[in-house]
Amino acid sequence: MKKITLDDLEYIAMGSTVLGTGGGGDPYIGKLMTREAIRQKGEVLLLDADDLDDDAFVVSIAAFGAPMILLEKLFSGDEFLKAFDMMETYHRKKIDAIIPAEAGGLNGVIPIGVAANKGVPLVNGDGMGRAFPRLEMVTFTLHGISSSPMSQADEKGNTAIYNTIDNVWGETLLGSATIQMGGSSAIGAFPMSGKQVKLAAVKGIMTFAYEIGKSIIDAKKNKENPLEKLLETTKGTKLFQGKISNIKIASDGRWNKGICEISGLNEYKDSNLVLDFQNEFLMAKRDGKPVAITPDLIVLLDAENAHPITAETMQYGTRVVVIGMPCDEQWRTPEGIILGGPAKFGYEESYVPLEQLV
Amino acid sequence: MKKITLDDLEYIAMGSTVLGTGGGGDPYIGKLMTREAIRQKGEVLLLDADDLDDDAFVVSIAAFGAPMILLEKLFSGDEFLKAFDMMETYHRKKIDAIIPAEAGGLNGVIPIGVAANKGVPLVNGDGMGRAFPRLEMVTFTLHGISSSPMSQADEKGNTAIYNTIDNVWGETLLGSATIQMGGSSAIGAFPMSGKQVKLAAVKGIMTFAYEIGKSIIDAKKNKENPLEKLLETTKGTKLFQGKISNIKIASDGRWNKGICEISGLNEYKDSNLVLDFQNEFLMAKRDGKPVAITPDLIVLLDAENAHPITAETMQYGTRVVVIGMPCDEQWRTPEGIILGGPAKFGYEESYVPLEQLV
Repeated sequence: MKKITLDDLEYIAMGSTVLGTGGGGDPYIGKLMTREAIRQKGEVLLLDADDLDDDAFVVSIAAFGAPMILLEKLFSGDEFLKAFDMMETYHRKKIDAIIPAEAGGLNGVIPIGVAANKGVPLVNGDGMGRAFPRLEMVTFTLHGISSSPMSQADEKGNTAIYNTIDNVWGETLLGSATIQMGGSSAIGAFPMSGKQVKLAAVKGIMTFAYEIGKSIIDAKKNKENPLEKLLETTKGTKLFQGKISNIKIASDGRWNKGICEISGLNEYKDSNLVLDFQNEFLMAKRDGKPVAITPDLIVLLDAENAHPITAETMQYGTRVVVIGMPCDEQWRTPEGIILGGPAKFGYEESYVPLEQLV
Repeated sequence: MKKITLDDLEYIAMGSTVLGTGGGGDPYIGKLMTREAIRQKGEVLLLDADDLDDDAFVVSIAAFGAPMILLEKLFSGDEFLKAFDMMETYHRKKIDAIIPAEAGGLNGVIPIGVAANKGVPLVNGDGMGRAFPRLEMVTFTLHGISSSPMSQADEKGNTAIYNTIDNVWGETLLGSATIQMGGSSAIGAFPMSGKQVKLAAVKGIMTFAYEIGKSIIDAKKNKENPLEKLLETTKGTKLFQGKISNIKIASDGRWNKGICEISGLNEYKDSNLVLDFQNEFLMAKRDGKPVAITPDLIVLLDAENAHPITAETMQYGTRVVVIGMPCDEQWRTPEGIILGGPAKFGYEESYVPLEQLV
């Protein structure tokens, strides 16, 4: 894949929802906007990180907000272009390429639309290899790359530029403004050189999202088992199968927090599994024992067609499968575990890689 | 007064506290910072609004935050210079003069220190002629002048630039960031031409603050009655005398809200007066009937020496005098009453000028 076409977009959106691990916002609205942009402006050039010039100017453009609101709120679309323009104006440089900050959920798709609209390439990489709920939780932070100067725009026409002392402050100020703006905004962040992208990005993630989506969607056409194809593509592990028996969810500003309990079926008949989420699924415990822990990816799928289910759209009684996928190696370093591991979210359990748990 | 000297500063700080009408933050810390700036950099040129060039570039520099926090928090001082520098950088123009947004409280003094530090004149005017709790509550708004583009800096080194669609949104975004920043920040706002300042400013307010302070402070030296001198200078009216018998105060983000009840003494022996405040004193009711209503100024004074008392420093049992002072004529227009009158703060009473109430 050298160019992202309308057909590719379907696969990528599905793959992004898987990588969203229950959070990241449903990509549906982003897909509509991006489809329109590709139709009008043409296909998007996908550039491998290693093909960037060392001094290329690369930024992330993303939707910022609570998944629950991102699901329902209509973006005007202009706010993303504004966030892009503001980065160029403030930095007094032309943007050479866009890199998704988060390939999971809505933000795996939005940058494609902006790239189409602006006629710039998209980097085949991101800063997470999944979705995470906070700005600073990116591999860029692990390499000392600042999220600032950042731009922010809402659909009403309000804009802001931030220069924060670290990426946690970036999250704090973008987050509080986003809540005021009605729960969502468009941001430009992580201005980087091509050289920095090569060091810090999770490489090949857009292709990976595409392959994930393709394995799910095409399995049906080919009369194959979509779950099997998905596990094959992602090197994932089936963790559980059952029926959603209980959902507790509380929304608070930018966070959906809660648990989803699943009663086992088939080989898991006498077991239960509890998914704990803070936007994303962060901990899966089978019969009280962890079987997958953040930063590894925990994905909830519809048992019927292996379509991913986000935390804000879970429904009582749905038959589901839970799978685990290993995270990018950068998250498994000591610094990565501090930034995206269980302690960061307040869990007492230590991180143990998925492969060792199951 | 053509230059603001160290001696003048004492008078202005006292006068600003009177104009703060119980809010605006105690100017004490601002006075210390400004004294230091004048000592190091020299006296500040005070420029009448009408002496500005029509195309002069004028901005407001102010402290933003809750009075309770402004009282206690140590500013580094640099954040105000940073807010100034950011306005110059963003607008790509040298600032020709600083105009206080609010001559009441801390913000009557802070701009003097910034002007001293930066070697620019201070405009003898402001946007309120008093203190008010919200950014949009300035005469500048009455003339359609935008608070944006605005700068914001905290003492930790975080900065932001905002472009909001109106001044209410300016308040919203500055306010939410300020709370995250620990309750206070430095801002640059209301970039204006000299021509706009001439139309919109409350003129002569720094001289007025100086005269108010002088009437209180010098009365003691001259063995005169400070309250009489103050009423003479301000064309004010004595509304009540008594002892503070009850204080209810609740802090919530940027707001101190509550009431202060005063039991009458002397000629008010069988009466009581209730001051209602939202940062500033906004309504004074004697025996249940309004005797002064925002935007007119309500000032609580120590009965002993006529020193103003701010809402966050009131103490049970203190013997006090309450005076009313007419607000600037701009606040008495229909638009002014909408922006700074009782309905804006949720009171049911209609605005009646002080002189007609007493």
